[in-house]
Amino acid sequence: MPRTHSALPSPAGPVRPTPDARTALRPAAVTVDGGFWHDRRATNARVSLPQGPDLLESAGNLHNLRLAAGTAEGVFQGAYPFVDTDVYKWLEAASWQLADGGGELLAADVDRIVALVADAQQPDGYLNTWFQLVKGGERYQDLRWGHELYCAGHLIQAAVAHHRSTGRPELLDAARRFADHIDSVFGLPGSGRPVDGIDGHPEVETALVELYRETGERRYLDLAGYFVDRHGHGLLGGDAYCQDRVPLRAATDVEGHAVRQLYLLAAAADLAAETGDAELRAAGERLWHALTATKTHLTGGLGAHHDQEEFGDPYELPNERAYCETCAAIASVQWSWRMALLTGEARYSDLIERTLYNGFLAGVSLDGERWLYVNPLQVRDGHTDTGGDQSARRTRWFRCACCPPNVMRLLASLPHYLASGDEQGLQIHQFVTGRYATDRVRVRAETDYPWHGTIAFTVEETPSGEPWTLSLRIPEWCREFRVRCGGETYDSPADDGWLRLSRTWTPGDLVVLELALEPRLTAADPRVDAVRGCVAIERGPLVHCLEQVDHPGGGLDDIVLDPSRPLAVKHRPDLLGGVTTVVAAGRRRRIPDRGWWPYAPATGPAAEPGGEPVELTAIPYHVWANREDGSMRVWLPTS
Amino acid sequence: MPRTHSALPSPAGPVRPTPDARTALRPAAVTVDGGFWHDRRATNARVSLPQGPDLLESAGNLHNLRLAAGTAEGVFQGAYPFVDTDVYKWLEAASWQLADGGGELLAADVDRIVALVADAQQPDGYLNTWFQLVKGGERYQDLRWGHELYCAGHLIQAAVAHHRSTGRPELLDAARRFADHIDSVFGLPGSGRPVDGIDGHPEVETALVELYRETGERRYLDLAGYFVDRHGHGLLGGDAYCQDRVPLRAATDVEGHAVRQLYLLAAAADLAAETGDAELRAAGERLWHALTATKTHLTGGLGAHHDQEEFGDPYELPNERAYCETCAAIASVQWSWRMALLTGEARYSDLIERTLYNGFLAGVSLDGERWLYVNPLQVRDGHTDTGGDQSARRTRWFRCACCPPNVMRLLASLPHYLASGDEQGLQIHQFVTGRYATDRVRVRAETDYPWHGTIAFTVEETPSGEPWTLSLRIPEWCREFRVRCGGETYDSPADDGWLRLSRTWTPGDLVVLELALEPRLTAADPRVDAVRGCVAIERGPLVHCLEQVDHPGGGLDDIVLDPSRPLAVKHRPDLLGGVTTVVAAGRRRRIPDRGWWPYAPATGPAAEPGGEPVELTAIPYHVWANREDGSMRVWLPTS
Repeated sequence: MPRTHSALPSPAGPVRPTPDARTALRPAAVTVDGGFWHDRRATNARVSLPQGPDLLESAGNLHNLRLAAGTAEGVFQGAYPFVDTDVYKWLEAASWQLADGGGELLAADVDRIVALVADAQQPDGYLNTWFQLVKGGERYQDLRWGHELYCAGHLIQAAVAHHRSTGRPELLDAARRFADHIDSVFGLPGSGRPVDGIDGHPEVETALVELYRETGERRYLDLAGYFVDRHGHGLLGGDAYCQDRVPLRAATDVEGHAVRQLYLLAAAADLAAETGDAELRAAGERLWHALTATKTHLTGGLGAHHDQEEFGDPYELPNERAYCETCAAIASVQWSWRMALLTGEARYSDLIERTLYNGFLAGVSLDGERWLYVNPLQVRDGHTDTGGDQSARRTRWFRCACCPPNVMRLLASLPHYLASGDEQGLQIHQFVTGRYATDRVRVRAETDYPWHGTIAFTVEETPSGEPWTLSLRIPEWCREFRVRCGGETYDSPADDGWLRLSRTWTPGDLVVLELALEPRLTAADPRVDAVRGCVAIERGPLVHCLEQVDHPGGGLDDIVLDPSRPLAVKHRPDLLGGVTTVVAAGRRRRIPDRGWWPYAPATGPAAEPGGEPVELTAIPYHVWANREDGSMRVWLPTS
Repeated sequence: MPRTHSALPSPAGPVRPTPDARTALRPAAVTVDGGFWHDRRATNARVSLPQGPDLLESAGNLHNLRLAAGTAEGVFQGAYPFVDTDVYKWLEAASWQLADGGGELLAADVDRIVALVADAQQPDGYLNTWFQLVKGGERYQDLRWGHELYCAGHLIQAAVAHHRSTGRPELLDAARRFADHIDSVFGLPGSGRPVDGIDGHPEVETALVELYRETGERRYLDLAGYFVDRHGHGLLGGDAYCQDRVPLRAATDVEGHAVRQLYLLAAAADLAAETGDAELRAAGERLWHALTATKTHLTGGLGAHHDQEEFGDPYELPNERAYCETCAAIASVQWSWRMALLTGEARYSDLIERTLYNGFLAGVSLDGERWLYVNPLQVRDGHTDTGGDQSARRTRWFRCACCPPNVMRLLASLPHYLASGDEQGLQIHQFVTGRYATDRVRVRAETDYPWHGTIAFTVEETPSGEPWTLSLRIPEWCREFRVRCGGETYDSPADDGWLRLSRTWTPGDLVVLELALEPRLTAADPRVDAVRGCVAIERGPLVHCLEQVDHPGGGLDDIVLDPSRPLAVKHRPDLLGGVTTVVAAGRRRRIPDRGWWPYAPATGPAAEPGGEPVELTAIPYHVWANREDGSMRVWLPTS
């Protein structure tokens, strides 16, 4: 049957499965036309994306491109060798948006900036304004810190998005010229290429797989495989930070710089999907388990250390100094989605859901204009804001502005991560209001998720008389649910997290999924020292938190939650654009004055019993830091 | 009466109290000739200090001095503009040691290196090999990061030590030339000096007060006051990191880079002592309370953040990522000692004791050859050592080698921090085997402290028929003690922590202090989130910890201490050079397998009850990391 959604961008992932593709699932085409994510994506399209060019202009990124093209005068602006990627990520985001009704003004901005990029490119395909302008054209001399291939990767990803969305060749041609140049330079000793090396920041690898998918050129896939496998052999000194301590195939734990690790793993999953490389797939499965079981914050946030933006030790998951870079949450979604497609397993999309609704979405303000680079789970009473990119207060833009355009591109490309299809049918990974479609079937969904737990699916198109399976992911957090379909009721998923409805469908058939959204208290493995004696409030996929502004009369650090008292749900259309809060019973501890020394014999209770009762209002974590500055806590002591 | 200890170095602090000196107490002269600190100081003298010149040679520090003097060829060695201070701190340490029987070889090394320093100095007094060799002599253009005055400060301190210990003028002359040069350059607008500025790293301030004390030149004191008061006015951009956000006189909390903050506060105490500046004294008292009540680890360690080596928020006291730089512990001792002398209050020496026996002493290995730059309170099972200066594993030397020579100088000058005197008599701040003396009285002490709690004092010299007061600090941790003196027994100190024995003494009079050293469990203020639900084992001034090597059969992160069972004391002459351990009852938790997600509904207990009983052996924290690598914990969960 013909594709009925020609207005949709082709989703990220293989658009033309090659004969050797080993991916279990293919992305399905999804439109989001109402509800929670529609609203956030509308703000992205209406506010964040249109502001991009001005911000890139005032930060100097576009100026640098003009300098490199010889059409402007002045000096390089910016503190980092990778400032070009802010432009590329914005271009990628805008390109995805163009396919979803971006509008003429956005299209004009894209055209203008694509032209700037093309003009800045050197005749042999090389492009990096830092090295062209500041480093005197000394290419590939500082692979560890130079970010030349990292920049190339983001250019390629932007080009793929631009071509896929608009059909226009300009940026893709530029990207291919750069990729061809890289392919002529890098290779194993004996390959005839002059440089055997990798970039300190993985990114080009997954981009090259995408370029292969877009162009069908096998060389790009091979080059991606070369880069992935040359990590871990000491070409950059053997540091874990740069993913150079151990080859992925032998690694037993995630380590080093979180975003670097996750981008590399995404590329490995891409390669496994395209080549059927079982060893790379096994490495991905092994490392994903290590990541989620011991190094993931409740919000899906990743990367424990401010210092070096690195993963910490297993179970080292601090709250106020959680780094949890917004970009790491985005990279986590990208990797997990590739693993979901590769394996067909629901747990990867469980983590995606948690990350999207919490650790990722907190990165942008409700108005789409202010950002968080790091996403702590606690801001203390009396917190001193140190300013800078790593502040726990929202910022208009960053010196290292990697996160804002990365948020823009994930929101713009969000439909790519929501559903998949295979020979058997359609798999719904995430619940949105809109349409989900494969080449053969289309389903309409209506929901007010995550505020309410009911999702109603209506079959709109189906091959006549041919049975297929509608698979619904039952979230890992969900303890009770019901599916009504054709007079039957289902209430238990398969062991792998999927509820599969196999039948011959008729247009108009209705499937209603009801997920119980009772608020719940969550505790951590006792090895997570940071939250011993604490619980977190969750509801559905949402992690909740307390903000000081909702608790006048004191700070949050002396508040105790009473876990024996019931939690209540309160819909608050007036609050923060309309959120559902959870109300809990608590009190303010009376802490004895210990003078100048806060440690004392452990003979009595740490705090005096009693204390003033306080009604605790827990808002969704993703809307924190949208009002006045103050303290915030996800994890709450129970005594 | 004549001074009877002419062999002693004059202790740090005013040697010639000026008429306007407002210090309550003067340092007393102490010799340490047996017991705990004698042993550690002997290792310092026998191993650490003699190895210094070779280490400074191989790291290139001495080579840089020769380059600056024009007596060698090559390029500057080292990564930092302050590498000269490694030499100065070693010179200061060795100088103090020379006064305490350092030996001819050490004296020859000192002579040789003093000559190198003098040769490298420029004709106008300026000396900084980084700026002379690398920065083309561009002086004072980068006060924020250049460390020129910081280096000058350490040169001055070394010079004061060298002159006070040996009576030799060479290094003091060099220091004065540099100080005079600085005095000709820096001053308020309108002062006729070309530069109104401060150094990004305080240090020169307290050094200039010392130079004033050593020379009697009031100019140096005034210059110190200028520098102290110019901090906090935005001359360096207003950053808290450099102590430039707010003037000390207005500050309400410690902030920024820990060592920078503490060195500046030490200088403020010096100034208050010398000038009677009540506002500076009040600032010191206020900030010391803020420091100890909310930002001090149990070990006395200071500085919560790896990132920027900074203080965290109040009660933000992480364990595994405690920075607790060894230099910050040293700076804390220096500042608290100045506050102790300024105020006469015992609590300052309470913190000194805790810091010396724990957070400071852990910085050097038992063999005196390996160091810790950071001093965490926890190393997790499965810890990944990231290497580098901030490793939780001991290192032979550091790229930024500030800590080792700083440890050497504190050990060499330790007697300066142990006792004080005033018109009323002698105050014993710390308990060692040796002699404590003022100009008028001398007391001999014998003790096996901190392993045993008995300290026996014998009056050796006393003015005949003149009453005076022997004051003993009763440590804040001590819940029970007894003093026997002249047939009387005393068991309660004054509210300020001192037990004062006032009488007319006769040589041979005996005072026996018995401090109960029962091991104890300590808990923290509940706002210290990092240790909720945990206790620490302490005994006397010692914080104890578990090391993995003493607990075969598993790691430490699943161990639980049973606080209802008694603690036992076990003297272990065989272990770690002879230590007293505390034995506690515990068990290994059985943690349910949660699959890939470590969070679960908080309905049941976090761990299954029961678990294998384990006898816990807690060693003193200061001897950790002297055996095989493994995990370590100070704070232990109780459930």
